[in-house]
Amino acid sequence: MTYYAEPINRLIKEFTRLPGVGEKTASRFTFYVLNAHKEYAETLAKSLIDIKDKILLCSRCFSLSDRNPCQICSDTTRKDDIVCVVENVRVMVAIEKMGGFKGRYHILHGVLSPLKGIGPDDIKLNELIDRIKQGVIKEVILATDSDIDGETTTLYITRLLKPMHIKVTRIATGIPVGSDIEYIDSATLGRAIEGRREL
Amino acid sequence: MTYYAEPINRLIKEFTRLPGVGEKTASRFTFYVLNAHKEYAETLAKSLIDIKDKILLCSRCFSLSDRNPCQICSDTTRKDDIVCVVENVRVMVAIEKMGGFKGRYHILHGVLSPLKGIGPDDIKLNELIDRIKQGVIKEVILATDSDIDGETTTLYITRLLKPMHIKVTRIATGIPVGSDIEYIDSATLGRAIEGRREL
Repeated sequence: MTYYAEPINRLIKEFTRLPGVGEKTASRFTFYVLNAHKEYAETLAKSLIDIKDKILLCSRCFSLSDRNPCQICSDTTRKDDIVCVVENVRVMVAIEKMGGFKGRYHILHGVLSPLKGIGPDDIKLNELIDRIKQGVIKEVILATDSDIDGETTTLYITRLLKPMHIKVTRIATGIPVGSDIEYIDSATLGRAIEGRREL
Repeated sequence: MTYYAEPINRLIKEFTRLPGVGEKTASRFTFYVLNAHKEYAETLAKSLIDIKDKILLCSRCFSLSDRNPCQICSDTTRKDDIVCVVENVRVMVAIEKMGGFKGRYHILHGVLSPLKGIGPDDIKLNELIDRIKQGVIKEVILATDSDIDGETTTLYITRLLKPMHIKVTRIATGIPVGSDIEYIDSATLGRAIEGRREL
């Protein structure tokens, strides 16, 4: 690392902080920037500053947006009585891309994880309760991952919401569309059989 | 892509221009920046600008440096009569890391490639001839890759330098240290046998 000029070393070091980027990838990125037109370095630098300056949390659903309330919360054509609870904005975007859901969202910004020390106050759970208390929401769809932390979170939220007399649902776990059942792991297969529906 | 706020989309787009970065990786990078301390975005942005502002080509060896002549060219303890010719700065750094070479370098910034339309005037070849004409250099080590373009470049430079009455050498092609000979490709094995040395 001491063989390059200092500004090169520094950019390599900053790039290695990105997830999944080791020293070799970081140096490929750095030399790409070095060889690219100066405009690219400037645009990337500006975008980095912009994202920190302009992106804020929507005070209703806690999505990341450049306005408050966010685009989805201010869309008057969407249903107010159904809320999809997700771990992060990327899950929300995945559901939006699918295109079939026309309700609102609530972004938890994490899931409960006793092992990592993440408790109910560390995610946007009280904020979800506050929204439900306003009396408009009739159904909450829980769309957390089906790993241990996701299931713990689902269980915890379900127990919390049951006394509030609203419908609490969970997205289905099962065989992905187009998969060969013979190659599916047995945990998923078990859940798929358990969740079978009458035709 | 239209589901995120505009500054998020833009940063994702800028990240996808980096080599080997697709939309998913770019969005992982973007959310990492979003969740990281503001300081990180600022330091990365500054490093990007710095590298374009401060890095220049050494007028002697054409290495990338923040000074001219570069650190290696201005190092008076190194030998002036032996020059290692490399394709790019990364190869130079690999040789420097190895630590055994104490001569100078000449960075071509590319190799000859008839297929890609890269000819002798597109790389720093005339500049190498000019350096040799100064009469100090006694040996030129060619350290280009042993692929087709690298070999073409070696052949071309060798023919060019032969009449100048200097020693032209080529780094050895052969079995890498620690490799199992049985798994080596036959092209390398052929070259290793061809390049055998008497013990």
